[in-house]
Amino acid sequence: MQQQRDLNRTRERIMAAAQKEFAANGFAGARTDAIARRAHVNERMIFYCFESKEGLYRAVLAKKLSAKAALIESMPDEDFASSLVRGFDECCDDIDSLRMWQWEALDKSNRKLVAEEERRTFLQSEVAHWRRAKASGILPPDADEEMLLLVSSALRVFPLVLPQVVSLVTGMDPLDPEFRQRWTACLESIGRQLFAPDNKSGDELKGKERRPVKVRKHSLPQAAAGEGRH
Amino acid sequence: MQQQRDLNRTRERIMAAAQKEFAANGFAGARTDAIARRAHVNERMIFYCFESKEGLYRAVLAKKLSAKAALIESMPDEDFASSLVRGFDECCDDIDSLRMWQWEALDKSNRKLVAEEERRTFLQSEVAHWRRAKASGILPPDADEEMLLLVSSALRVFPLVLPQVVSLVTGMDPLDPEFRQRWTACLESIGRQLFAPDNKSGDELKGKERRPVKVRKHSLPQAAAGEGRH
Repeated sequence: MQQQRDLNRTRERIMAAAQKEFAANGFAGARTDAIARRAHVNERMIFYCFESKEGLYRAVLAKKLSAKAALIESMPDEDFASSLVRGFDECCDDIDSLRMWQWEALDKSNRKLVAEEERRTFLQSEVAHWRRAKASGILPPDADEEMLLLVSSALRVFPLVLPQVVSLVTGMDPLDPEFRQRWTACLESIGRQLFAPDNKSGDELKGKERRPVKVRKHSLPQAAAGEGRH
Repeated sequence: MQQQRDLNRTRERIMAAAQKEFAANGFAGARTDAIARRAHVNERMIFYCFESKEGLYRAVLAKKLSAKAALIESMPDEDFASSLVRGFDECCDDIDSLRMWQWEALDKSNRKLVAEEERRTFLQSEVAHWRRAKASGILPPDADEEMLLLVSSALRVFPLVLPQVVSLVTGMDPLDPEFRQRWTACLESIGRQLFAPDNKSGDELKGKERRPVKVRKHSLPQAAAGEGRH
């Protein structure tokens, strides 16, 4: 009992250390001896608990992904704007995961994606979320959930993925509270504009069935409710 | 004369080889001997032409950036949707530059950004473009050019920056013509929806002066022109 608790604590400590090492150096560059030093364990303990560096990488990713999937499941009524804002906040609080994905994108070896099943499950949980949102009328019935997921991912992660662009354009770091506030306001407005509660047309994310996209003449009502936000 | 032409050709060949090497391994990981081999020149030629690895890196980036800035200047009337589509196409044709920026983002050393001035000039040329678009009425007068630049960058580069997300969600590579077509249709629609010719309200990119963002009730006209596209 006590032994099991100790082992779990050790596993947690190794995973926390591994996350830092994988974020800093990528899967290929990460060293298990460095992880062991960071976690204050004997390197053999890593292999006892996770079998291999890949096993450890999978465990780190899978834990994050299942937490995120559970969070999405817990918010069935979340609209597009709120999910953008929440997604950006999450990324700000978990740069390590994002960096792990970035290293993978730059990896030249044709390494098989680790934890592919867990990732697919996570991403499909988000697609399913948008599908339910269509069913309940939060999103227009012809929205393309897959493109929606990519658009929202783009807007959530971009400032953190290429922080030098943010810094060159605004003079701020993406984690600067002032920048976060400004980007958040921008996301809220974009989310509302693309899928406002009154806007059920949503042609921007069609195209899944590859039918020709209709050219619409959009116009927004000039009247605006004057309620302040923040 | 002939000698100058030969030297220019050699410089070009070195820069092309360097671009591949920097894209594959980042600035820190790139090796000048590998670049020399790729370019079929003596390694000393690199230092004769560019002084240092950093000088070469700067030259490669600066060339790309000035070409892009000139392209933006040449299209004063481009609207938001078209610029998204063009920007995505450019990224697809120049993954190397994108990868160079991605490596920089992952670099832990606090290395000073190379070619910072050239980058700023390029990004400011885009900001200036949107400023002119406001003046000429293509964009609403209260649009925030800086946020606009970040939003458009996000949408242009995302599929290429994290291709594994595209692949997990759609089963396609981001360079797959079918995916490119689908993403392009999505960008066109988003661009139109955010800044349609009839839509001069554009509150989605305000927030620069940190005034409270108004909560608007958006609605889109139900009538749609039935013209096909493509």
